[in-house]
Amino acid sequence: MESDYGVPRDLSHLQKMRSIYQPELPPCLQGTPVGVEFGDATTVADSISQSFPHTSGQRLAHFLAKVPGAQIISHLPEMRVGLVFCGRQSPGGHNVVWGLHEALKFHNPKSTLLGFLGGSEGLFAQKTLEITDNILSTYKNQGGYDLLGRTKDQIRTKEQVNAAMTACNALKLDGLVIIGGVTSNTDAAQLAEAFAEAKCSTKVVGVPVTLNGDLKNQFVEANVGFDTICKVNSQLISNVCTDALSAEKYYYFIRLMGRKASHVALECALQSHPNMVIIAEEVAASKLTIFDLTKQICDAVQARAEADKYHGVILLPEGLIVSIPEVYALLQEIHSLLQHGVSVDKISTQLSPWASALFEFLPTFITKQLLLNPESDYSAQLSQIETEKLLAQLVEVEMNKRQKEGSYKGKKFNAICHFSGYQARGSLPSKFDCDYAYVLGHVCYHILSAGLNGYMATVTNLKNPCNQWHCGAAPITAMLSIKQEGRALTVGVHPAIVDLRGKVYESVRKNSQKMLLDDIYRNPGPLQFDGPGADSRAVSLCVEDLDYMGRIKELNEYLEKVRSIVKPGCHQDVVKAALSAMSSVTNILSVMASNGSA
Amino acid sequence: MESDYGVPRDLSHLQKMRSIYQPELPPCLQGTPVGVEFGDATTVADSISQSFPHTSGQRLAHFLAKVPGAQIISHLPEMRVGLVFCGRQSPGGHNVVWGLHEALKFHNPKSTLLGFLGGSEGLFAQKTLEITDNILSTYKNQGGYDLLGRTKDQIRTKEQVNAAMTACNALKLDGLVIIGGVTSNTDAAQLAEAFAEAKCSTKVVGVPVTLNGDLKNQFVEANVGFDTICKVNSQLISNVCTDALSAEKYYYFIRLMGRKASHVALECALQSHPNMVIIAEEVAASKLTIFDLTKQICDAVQARAEADKYHGVILLPEGLIVSIPEVYALLQEIHSLLQHGVSVDKISTQLSPWASALFEFLPTFITKQLLLNPESDYSAQLSQIETEKLLAQLVEVEMNKRQKEGSYKGKKFNAICHFSGYQARGSLPSKFDCDYAYVLGHVCYHILSAGLNGYMATVTNLKNPCNQWHCGAAPITAMLSIKQEGRALTVGVHPAIVDLRGKVYESVRKNSQKMLLDDIYRNPGPLQFDGPGADSRAVSLCVEDLDYMGRIKELNEYLEKVRSIVKPGCHQDVVKAALSAMSSVTNILSVMASNGSA
Repeated sequence: MESDYGVPRDLSHLQKMRSIYQPELPPCLQGTPVGVEFGDATTVADSISQSFPHTSGQRLAHFLAKVPGAQIISHLPEMRVGLVFCGRQSPGGHNVVWGLHEALKFHNPKSTLLGFLGGSEGLFAQKTLEITDNILSTYKNQGGYDLLGRTKDQIRTKEQVNAAMTACNALKLDGLVIIGGVTSNTDAAQLAEAFAEAKCSTKVVGVPVTLNGDLKNQFVEANVGFDTICKVNSQLISNVCTDALSAEKYYYFIRLMGRKASHVALECALQSHPNMVIIAEEVAASKLTIFDLTKQICDAVQARAEADKYHGVILLPEGLIVSIPEVYALLQEIHSLLQHGVSVDKISTQLSPWASALFEFLPTFITKQLLLNPESDYSAQLSQIETEKLLAQLVEVEMNKRQKEGSYKGKKFNAICHFSGYQARGSLPSKFDCDYAYVLGHVCYHILSAGLNGYMATVTNLKNPCNQWHCGAAPITAMLSIKQEGRALTVGVHPAIVDLRGKVYESVRKNSQKMLLDDIYRNPGPLQFDGPGADSRAVSLCVEDLDYMGRIKELNEYLEKVRSIVKPGCHQDVVKAALSAMSSVTNILSVMASNGSA
Repeated sequence: MESDYGVPRDLSHLQKMRSIYQPELPPCLQGTPVGVEFGDATTVADSISQSFPHTSGQRLAHFLAKVPGAQIISHLPEMRVGLVFCGRQSPGGHNVVWGLHEALKFHNPKSTLLGFLGGSEGLFAQKTLEITDNILSTYKNQGGYDLLGRTKDQIRTKEQVNAAMTACNALKLDGLVIIGGVTSNTDAAQLAEAFAEAKCSTKVVGVPVTLNGDLKNQFVEANVGFDTICKVNSQLISNVCTDALSAEKYYYFIRLMGRKASHVALECALQSHPNMVIIAEEVAASKLTIFDLTKQICDAVQARAEADKYHGVILLPEGLIVSIPEVYALLQEIHSLLQHGVSVDKISTQLSPWASALFEFLPTFITKQLLLNPESDYSAQLSQIETEKLLAQLVEVEMNKRQKEGSYKGKKFNAICHFSGYQARGSLPSKFDCDYAYVLGHVCYHILSAGLNGYMATVTNLKNPCNQWHCGAAPITAMLSIKQEGRALTVGVHPAIVDLRGKVYESVRKNSQKMLLDDIYRNPGPLQFDGPGADSRAVSLCVEDLDYMGRIKELNEYLEKVRSIVKPGCHQDVVKAALSAMSSVTNILSVMASNGSA
C-alpha cells in the first residue's frame, strides 16, 4: 500500500511552474545561526498544570537573526525527525515538510527527516519514507497530503501513545512533528507530556494546519489551508452568484466545510457578498430553532420577491446543524444510544418524547444522516449531513404554504443545493499558504534545535508581507482549556468560534441588509499565482487586529519608558503623576483579570 | 425589473484588473476599411433549401484587411443593431457585446447598439438598454449574462417570430445579433428566412456562444464559454482527485453540465486524468444498459481494490442518462404522456409494461426527476437528473452483493456525488474566451456592414495565437441538418456529438487503462490570467485538426498550381500524368460523395 507514496508525478504546466516557486524566509530566519529569545512564562489553569506538570508554564520563544543578547545556538548537531499528517488534508501541508527538510539539511546535511506513511496508523506501525530533495520535487507548493497520506487521526489512548513512543524510540527520533488542527494538536500536547514523563528524548512539535481556520488564539493568527479554501470556495460562490443573477430563477443554498465554527463561511461571505450567510455561532447564541431559521429565510425570500427578485445565494456552515439547540439535543441522544450499543434501526424508538417528535418531523434523508456514527473526536459527521437540503426543503414547504394562504404572491420558490468542501480541499495552495507553511516548517526545525518539547510553531504579523513576519513558538499547554461537552469535561485545544463582538463578524453584519436586497455580489476570481490578486490575504486576517505578541512587546516598551523617565532626580510632580496613573492602571487590570477577561 | 440591468457594480481587485484587459484584434480586422471576400456557395440538402429559399446556398465570407482584389467596404453608414442573449449563460458572452459596440462606434460614432433586456422575452416586449462605454465598463471580461439577463430561450412559433419582427421594425434595426447555442442559432436561421421572406430590412446574425461546446462543424471550431467551463471544472475535478488520493476512502462521482453531448466531460478528462470517464456517445453506440454500466464500474472498483486502492474519481456527462437506450425509451414515453396532458401522478400507471418495469426498479429520487417537464427544446431537464447518484447507488448495491457472495473481498465501497455546473457557469471568462468573444463581436459588425443575412460569425485557426486567427462568416443554413427525434423529423443546427473515431476521443481511450489503475491525476490548477497557463488552450482544440476552411484554401492552391504547370507548351508526358492523376482523384471523390461522406 505504501509503495504509492512519494512517487514522482506527471505535473501539468502550471503545477510544474508552481513546483519551482521558492517562498521567502523572513529576515529573522535568514542565515545561521538563528537566535532564540525566551519571553514570559505562560499561565494556565491549575487543573491543567496538574495534568501537564512537565510541559505547562513553559516560556514563549522568539526566533531572531543574531541579535545581541539573545542565546545563540552555535552547535548544530545531526538530527533525526519524524513527521506525521493528521486530520483533514489542508492545502499547503506539503510545504511544512519541505521547509523542515530544507532547514534540517541546511544546518547539518547528515540530518534525516522521516515521513510517516498513512497518518497516525503509519506512526504506530513505524512505516516511514525518508524525505529527499528528489521526492519533494513534485510535491513542493502542491495540494493534498498524498506525499505521505493519512488515515485515522487519533493519538490519544494509552495504547496509541505507547505505540507512538515505541516508534520514536525505535527510530531514535530527536523530534516528532505533528501537522494538524485542534484535535491533533491536543494529542500533540498530551504526547509531549507523556514523553517528558517517560523521559523519552523525542521532542514533540505541533503545526497549525487546518482548513477550518479554528485553531486561533493569542499565539496563532491563522492556519495553513484556510486562505486557499476560502479563496477557492469564494470563487465558486461568486460564480454561482453571477449565475443566479443571469438566470434569475433559483435560490442556491451552499453549505461550506469548516467543522463546528463558521470561520470559512464568514470569510467567504466577506469575499463574495452573497445575499445571506448564516453564522452557526449566532444561531447558537440566539437559540434559534429550525423553524425560526426557516422563517427568517422565507421572510428574506419574500422581501426580495417584493423587489421582483426570485434568485439568491445563501451560505451556511456545515456546523450549523449542531448549533440549532433542538437538533444538537437530538444528536446527543442518538450518539449516547449508539455508544450504548443500540442498533441504528432501534434508535428512533428509544428517544425521549421530545427528541422523538423532532426526529419524526425531519425528512428521512436527514434522519439517516443524523444516525451516522460520530467522528473520532465524538462530534457528528458534519460533512455527511445535508443541512442545505433540509433548509431548502423547509423553506419550499413554507413558501408554498404562504402562497396558498395568499400572504406570498410572488413566483414559485426554486432551490438548488451545493456542498462545497471536497472540491476546494485538494486545491493547489495559494501563495500565502505556500509561504506560511514553508516558514512554519523552518520554525519547527528551530524549535527542535532549541530542544523545546510540547511547543507549537508560530508565525505572526501575517497580514503584512513575509519580510515582516515574526517567528516563534508557544507551549501548546498555554492553548488548552477546559470545556463541558455533553456531560464530560474535556481538556483540549478547543476550536475558536466566531467572535460575535469581533470586527470580522461586524463587517458582515453591517452590510447584511445591502447584501440581502441589493445583490452587491463580488467575485474575487480564481486563485491567482501571478499578477493582480496573487498576494491577497484573507479579509478576516486583515480586518482583525491580531498581533497579540506585538502588543505585549509594545506594552513592555511603555513600561521601560516610564522607568527611564521616573528616576531619582526627576521632579516630584512627575513621580506623583506616574504613581497615580500606574496605580489606576493596575487597579483596573486586577478587576478585569479577576472577572475572567484576562 | 429591468432597472437592475447594466448597473455599475462593485468589482473585486481581480475583477477590476480584468475589466481593463484589452483583447487583441487579429490583423485581418485591424484598421479600416476591412475587406470582404466571398468564397464558394454552400450546399445544403434539397428539403432544406426548399424551406430556406432566401437564405440557403449563400456564399462563405472572409474578412481581410485591405487585400488587393477584395471588395472594399468604403461606405460606413450609421447602423442600429439589437442584441439578445439566448439560452444558458456562458462565460465570455459580455465580450461579444463589447466587441460589437466598439466596432460599431469605431466605424460610425452615431451607430447604436441596443441590448434586449431579459432575453427573448425582452425582444418580444421591446425592452431595451442602449449600450454605452460607461455601461460596459464593469462588464468587460466578466462572466455571466447579467448585463442584460435572459429568460426564455425560444424564438420559434409564428407568434414569437412576428413579435421579433415587429420589434426589429419598430426599433428600425439594421441588424439583430443572437447570442446562443444550437437551439438559438436554429431560431436565428428561421428568423433570417422569415425576415427575408417578409422583406424586413433587419439582418440576422448568430454567434456561437455555448458552454456545451456542441455547436461544432466545418465552419465553427469552438464555442465561447467552453474553454472557461472546462478549465474551472478541471480544476475542481483535479482538486477532488488530490483529495481522493490523500484520504484514500471515497469514490467521487462527478456529473458535468454540457447537455446531450460529452464534449465537456471529454475535455475535462484530458485536462485532469480521472480514473474513469463515461462518454455518453460510447454508451449509446454500444447500447449499454444501466446494468452493463454498473457492472463496468464495479469491475473497475474491484480491479482497484486488488491493488489496495479504495478511492477513485469517475466523470460522467449530464447527457448520459438519455444515452442509455432503455432510459431514453422510458423518457420518450413519459414526455409523450405529459404532452397528452396526463398528470404526473398518473403517468406510472400508463407506461408500457417494459417501461413500467424499469420505472418501478429505479429509486424514487430519480423517477421524480424523470417526471419533470421537458425543456423548451423538448429534451429532458438534464441538469435536474442526478445520474451520478443513481450510478453510485447501483454500484454500492452491487458491491455489497459481491461482498456477501464472496466474489469481492475488499473494503466497503463509499461514494460521494457532485454535480458541477452552476459553480463554473458564472466564472470570470478565461483569456481565450475573452479574446474569442471580443473578436466575434467585431466580426458581427462586419457581417452586418456587408449586408449579410442569416450568417454566423466565425473565427478559425483558434489553436494558434490571436494574430493568426482568420475571421469570416458562414450561412447558418449550411449548418442545418435533418434528424429524427422521437417520431418527428426536425431541421436544425444539431449538437455535434463526440466523434468516436476522432483524435480527441482516441487520446483519452489510449490512456484509459493507465488512468483507471495508476492514478495519473493531473491538476491544471485554477484559471490563470497572468503568467504560466494564462494562454493555454483546451486540449481538444489543439488535438483536433480543425482548419476546414484552411484546407479548402490549400486545395485550391494545389488546383491552381496544376493549372499553371499544365499549359499549352508543356511536355506531353506532363499532360498525361496530370490527366491520369486528376481522373483518379475525381473518381474517388465522386464515389465518396455519393456514399454520403461528403
